[in-house]
Amino acid sequence: MIERLAIIGVGLIGGSLARALRAAGAVGEIVGCGRSLGNLERALELGVVDRITQNPAEAVREADMVFLAVPLGAMRGALAAMRDSLRPEAIVTDGGSVKCSVVEDARAVFGRVPPRLVPGHPIAGTEHSGVEASFAELYRDRRVILTPLAETDPEAVARVTAMWQTCGAEVTAMSVAHHDEVLAATSHLPHMLAFGLVDSLARMRENDEIFRYAAGGFRDFTRIASSNPVMWRDICLANREALSAMLARFGVEMTDLAESIRRSDGEHLLEIFARAKAARDRYVDQARPVHEDADRSSSQT
Amino acid sequence: MIERLAIIGVGLIGGSLARALRAAGAVGEIVGCGRSLGNLERALELGVVDRITQNPAEAVREADMVFLAVPLGAMRGALAAMRDSLRPEAIVTDGGSVKCSVVEDARAVFGRVPPRLVPGHPIAGTEHSGVEASFAELYRDRRVILTPLAETDPEAVARVTAMWQTCGAEVTAMSVAHHDEVLAATSHLPHMLAFGLVDSLARMRENDEIFRYAAGGFRDFTRIASSNPVMWRDICLANREALSAMLARFGVEMTDLAESIRRSDGEHLLEIFARAKAARDRYVDQARPVHEDADRSSSQT
Ligand SMILES: NC(=O)c1ccc[n+]([C@@H]2O[C@H](COP(=O)([O-])OP(=O)(O)OC[C@H]3O[C@@H](n4cnc5c(N)ncnc54)[C@H](OP(=O)(O)O)[C@@H]3O)[C@@H](O)[C@H]2O)c1
Ligand SMILES: NC(=O)c1ccc[n+]([C@@H]2O[C@H](COP(=O)([O-])OP(=O)(O)OC[C@H]3O[C@@H](n4cnc5c(N)ncnc54)[C@H](OP(=O)(O)O)[C@@H]3O)[C@@H](O)[C@H]2O)c1
Repeated sequence: MIERLAIIGVGLIGGSLARALRAAGAVGEIVGCGRSLGNLERALELGVVDRITQNPAEAVREADMVFLAVPLGAMRGALAAMRDSLRPEAIVTDGGSVKCSVVEDARAVFGRVPPRLVPGHPIAGTEHSGVEASFAELYRDRRVILTPLAETDPEAVARVTAMWQTCGAEVTAMSVAHHDEVLAATSHLPHMLAFGLVDSLARMRENDEIFRYAAGGFRDFTRIASSNPVMWRDICLANREALSAMLARFGVEMTDLAESIRRSDGEHLLEIFARAKAARDRYVDQARPVHEDADRSSSQT
Repeated sequence: MIERLAIIGVGLIGGSLARALRAAGAVGEIVGCGRSLGNLERALELGVVDRITQNPAEAVREADMVFLAVPLGAMRGALAAMRDSLRPEAIVTDGGSVKCSVVEDARAVFGRVPPRLVPGHPIAGTEHSGVEASFAELYRDRRVILTPLAETDPEAVARVTAMWQTCGAEVTAMSVAHHDEVLAATSHLPHMLAFGLVDSLARMRENDEIFRYAAGGFRDFTRIASSNPVMWRDICLANREALSAMLARFGVEMTDLAESIRRSDGEHLLEIFARAKAARDRYVDQARPVHEDADRSSSQT
């Protein structure tokens, strides 16, 4: 049971955690903190939070659990603003899509990564933003990755794990670097391809006509290009190394593919497509969650 | 009303046309022709066709309408096999995803493009194959593009148009070259990206673990990588020119994006992402059909 939860950034990710814990009866008071008053007032109206403030120091003053869910570029400022108001026993965790930058931010603000700070990332989301887009079921049957450091307090990890399990999520742990590489491959690179594709079509002459002849597959394929541009700018900047490596790897693959097309090498094309189809079919067979519909309508970062 | 329809290739596309016309009571007898007996017998069992044969010459002998729905690489052989058995008044049309190759095939087989051959392409499909995957509603509220030539008989175009309208589709016409460029952008390029992404992940060490942390967005994004590899090999070979041009254009976009990440140019990244999001949101707002669910679960080639 969490007595007083402070959510810094009451958007899709922060709002959904608040809703899920509330629905489970696992939290006392929820204090919402953010930037714009409009979104915070809406959060209050919707009953997602009990109290609002634009001041992180005030938000965390009596909290036993603090959840940071602002864009990655705003993490350091939020940590700095709350630093001197945190109760010593308070646990701080976050939902940022990249973990090396959050750890670096903590180190910069606190001089070391506080033992009761547990870096985390729910592998769940949609292409929509703000508290309006939040819902209690977002984390059900989804994975949450925690990336504790050697110095992280095991009891803090256990409490954050329990919090996510209460929301229906399955919690796993891995290193910061491994998290950032895996996510670069499965989430950050696909987002770059979707943004890049849609932008390159949008910049073509007659792009209106082009989009007119794009049907079902295109809609699914490009859904993630409707994601929040600020959040994605921050993810790119925060995960620069791992994402650059994945982009380079993908570039090699596409050069090979383009060359095969140019020299009409049907055999090699068939080999690539068949290997990809087999991997994708295997992935779908094994994929959790089993809830096909929930899965279809959501995207992950 | 079509008296005798010959479907050459009773798979997803051919089978769905048969089902749709049957459901509309717009066809007399349907003869199914294909390669493997297994699929044809299944088509007969399912009531998709009334009669089956593995010989295109026999299939078309009494047909007033012939629909070709084999992979693009099999079009020329099918046309050659039926050439001497076509009734002079028979209309031939097809559903191939690339139009320049079909026109070239017809020219090679008949010495010229027959006036009663109407090249066409339904902008509808899924990632599944074979008659089992076919369904009568596939073409409802979807576009069909016809690419008649100067020498094409307007009455033949009118009859093919009416046939697709009976299936609930909206029919438009454009030039062969324009079709192939538009489809390279909206369908063929996205398929290359999906195949390329999944293949490059599948080739990474620990790819099982990578796929384990891929959730909702990845599933949607890569759905089209589950498409038929033979069909896609053929599309690449058939639309080599236009697809190569689109791949080059996309390469320039991705180089720009990768460079921006490498030099931490947040402003430029934000510009790209914001432009892409705006274009994608506009596309979704304007997209037809209105049936969100049908749209979500299907892919187009
Ligand atoms: N969306 C996903 O799919 C997803 C999935 C997993 C993890 N994440 C991570 O979760 C975090 C939040 O993402 P989200 O999708 O929930 O975004 P969101 O819906 O846009 O919510 C972000 C919230 O943070 C507030 N905020 C923005 N800048 C701020 C600043 N400088 N100072 C204080 N508050 C600020 C926003 O306030 P305003 O109302 O004023 O804009 C908004 O309420 C990000 O770190 C992201 O990487 C996202
Ligand atoms: N799938 C889409 O999303 C989509 C959308 C629009 C247009 N198209 C186009 O429609 C055509 C058919 O695609 P589809 O998705 O319907 O494929 P499909 O489900 O695999 O059906 C193709 C059919 O053609 C038969 N076939 C294959 N090779 C043959 C050959 N050499 N000679 C005679 N028959 C042969 C197959 O017979 P077997 O049973 O022996 O394999 C199968 O029944 C392709 O030209 C494709 O470009 C596809």
